[in-house]
Amino acid sequence: MSIYLDNAATSYPKPREVADAVYNFMVNNGTSSGRGSYQKAMESDFLIYNTRKEIASLFNFNDPKKVIFTSNITEALNMAIKGILKRGDHVITSSLEHNAVWRCLKTLEKEINISITKIDANKEGYTNIKDIEENIKDNTSLIVFTQASNVLGTIQPIKDIGAIARRYKIPFLVDAAQSAGVLPIDVKEDNIDILAFTGHKSLLGPMGTGGLLINCEYNIEPLKVGGTGGDSAYEYQPNYYPNKLETGTLNVSGIIGLGEAVKFIKNKGIINIHNKEKELVRYALDKLKSVNNIQIYGPQDSDKIVSVISFNIKNTMAEEIAYTLDNKYNIMVRAGLHCAPSAHDLIGTKDIGTLRIGIGYFNEREDIDILVRALNEIQI
Amino acid sequence: MSIYLDNAATSYPKPREVADAVYNFMVNNGTSSGRGSYQKAMESDFLIYNTRKEIASLFNFNDPKKVIFTSNITEALNMAIKGILKRGDHVITSSLEHNAVWRCLKTLEKEINISITKIDANKEGYTNIKDIEENIKDNTSLIVFTQASNVLGTIQPIKDIGAIARRYKIPFLVDAAQSAGVLPIDVKEDNIDILAFTGHKSLLGPMGTGGLLINCEYNIEPLKVGGTGGDSAYEYQPNYYPNKLETGTLNVSGIIGLGEAVKFIKNKGIINIHNKEKELVRYALDKLKSVNNIQIYGPQDSDKIVSVISFNIKNTMAEEIAYTLDNKYNIMVRAGLHCAPSAHDLIGTKDIGTLRIGIGYFNEREDIDILVRALNEIQI
Repeated sequence: MSIYLDNAATSYPKPREVADAVYNFMVNNGTSSGRGSYQKAMESDFLIYNTRKEIASLFNFNDPKKVIFTSNITEALNMAIKGILKRGDHVITSSLEHNAVWRCLKTLEKEINISITKIDANKEGYTNIKDIEENIKDNTSLIVFTQASNVLGTIQPIKDIGAIARRYKIPFLVDAAQSAGVLPIDVKEDNIDILAFTGHKSLLGPMGTGGLLINCEYNIEPLKVGGTGGDSAYEYQPNYYPNKLETGTLNVSGIIGLGEAVKFIKNKGIINIHNKEKELVRYALDKLKSVNNIQIYGPQDSDKIVSVISFNIKNTMAEEIAYTLDNKYNIMVRAGLHCAPSAHDLIGTKDIGTLRIGIGYFNEREDIDILVRALNEIQI
Repeated sequence: MSIYLDNAATSYPKPREVADAVYNFMVNNGTSSGRGSYQKAMESDFLIYNTRKEIASLFNFNDPKKVIFTSNITEALNMAIKGILKRGDHVITSSLEHNAVWRCLKTLEKEINISITKIDANKEGYTNIKDIEENIKDNTSLIVFTQASNVLGTIQPIKDIGAIARRYKIPFLVDAAQSAGVLPIDVKEDNIDILAFTGHKSLLGPMGTGGLLINCEYNIEPLKVGGTGGDSAYEYQPNYYPNKLETGTLNVSGIIGLGEAVKFIKNKGIINIHNKEKELVRYALDKLKSVNNIQIYGPQDSDKIVSVISFNIKNTMAEEIAYTLDNKYNIMVRAGLHCAPSAHDLIGTKDIGTLRIGIGYFNEREDIDILVRALNEIQI
């Protein structure tokens, strides 16, 4: 039996109904959405709209047509960031961002001369919201924050940051890569203007899915333009959602699978999923502490993190341990920088990286027990 | 029994092994590619690379890492066009382009002041290559042509256009949406610098797949930037393929399905597929001519078109006929502009659109017989 502990990269397994829905659509319908007007194509439209509705309602949002599908969250973040920022704008971001945000900002800094203020978190990954307000300038045009670090797991004070953004009328973009599907998110309560989500992590859907939920009236220029099914004689992208930001043939089967995944989450109850994972994280933190020579990073408090734990074993390379865990124990974990170098600046691991476990809904305590035993055995 | 004749939008059915491969990967592997170093993730890497190899070899290309995956061909075309054109550049294109190309160019015209020369085809959809050479300017930085019109089916003289592009050292981008998988394409012989393909039409793969094949050294700036698995500490997108243009988690299951589809095509032999479809098109043209009040557009020669036929029935709206074909006869065809308004300018149907059938590899003569009978019955 293999043990999968890389759910922060992508969740596995998925609920069986996800792959079943993908397969069923491919074999029995297979038509494009938003194009033909025959019944099977209308069914395809309906199923896509249904996933928009499921996602909107999961995040307490009531405008499904402003749920935009992309191929992954990186595309969604690029779409929002490049769609909002203009030459000379200023942006405020965290020191915990994934490269999906950070490389995007650095590229725009070079290309259109934006300026970036990176708010340093402390080494547990906590951001002081005062630092945000103090750094707002006249030309601050975007605040973009990850909701939870993919290295330390630390949950950010999104609601409070959102309140500041609202006060200054600055668009607030939240990267929910590590939180959507496991933390309860309410875009209204949490003051989120734009939520970027990925379909294939805690939302338990297929790869090839993700998107934006646009809970604001700020303009977002399209990242891509092209066919939208309707308005074909118009030479520019239409100005209404979702067509403004969605173009070309959608990943219909993937999106339908995502719809089933969200239904699964709602049936289980997101609070129950959150509590199960929190309990596993608590258990894991407790057990990992007993491992010889371990250094665990981040808050070590299951109330303050999502299901991601980074650690190192003194005197042994993370890659070497990951390799042995896989080869000898059939345990899959990640080693490296996890595409978020700045978070490693905070904890002093930019040269060595960390081992990271990403716990998922389908993990059990036994998986942790076996991991902990293996980590100790490796060092004998 | 329903009859699907909208294969120009997306092909249906697919070879069974395509959905099987998607399902099998989702259920039995499910890991991301290019990220983890555990064995299952390496298998995922291997399968992705394998699809790159299959696609490269199908088009006689020998550098799989320059096969770039995107979520659809619209993204691929945006990536190439926006990645190449700079402020003030001039571009030459056809009058047969899909909005995936046309809207992209019109948007850049507004945003960065590019100039566009649209080479008018005649009403059969033939482009005179002399018109291309005559319109080359000092600042012509891109020639972009569809290989076959999605309205008229007309195949363009790609090889000759490519020869001109090579002579003037201008990047030549080919939109193979309607040709890849059914016309034999050889990027070397055909002088194609950049081939944009879609996975889910004649390549018989899943939706959510497509890409670029980059057979040149021209620079293409990334459309999106973000995590690439490696080089995480570097603040910009790495400069090597495929990572330069691919970012975030790939649609691994979809790409694996596409790999199976390309294997299917190779096993059947692309010449055999082409010949089967050509014969069906010949048959369809012949039979359609007998329909009362029909006006068929385009060359009406199966050697000159891909498997797309546009037509109208005098005095009856295309939409109305499409509706009746679906509701009464279970025949799925398309009505409208098919996201390519300029092609309708050529044939005078911009106000009324056309009915379009897209014949696929799995269609049979009987499907055409039933369609033709229905078209006549409708008018009684």
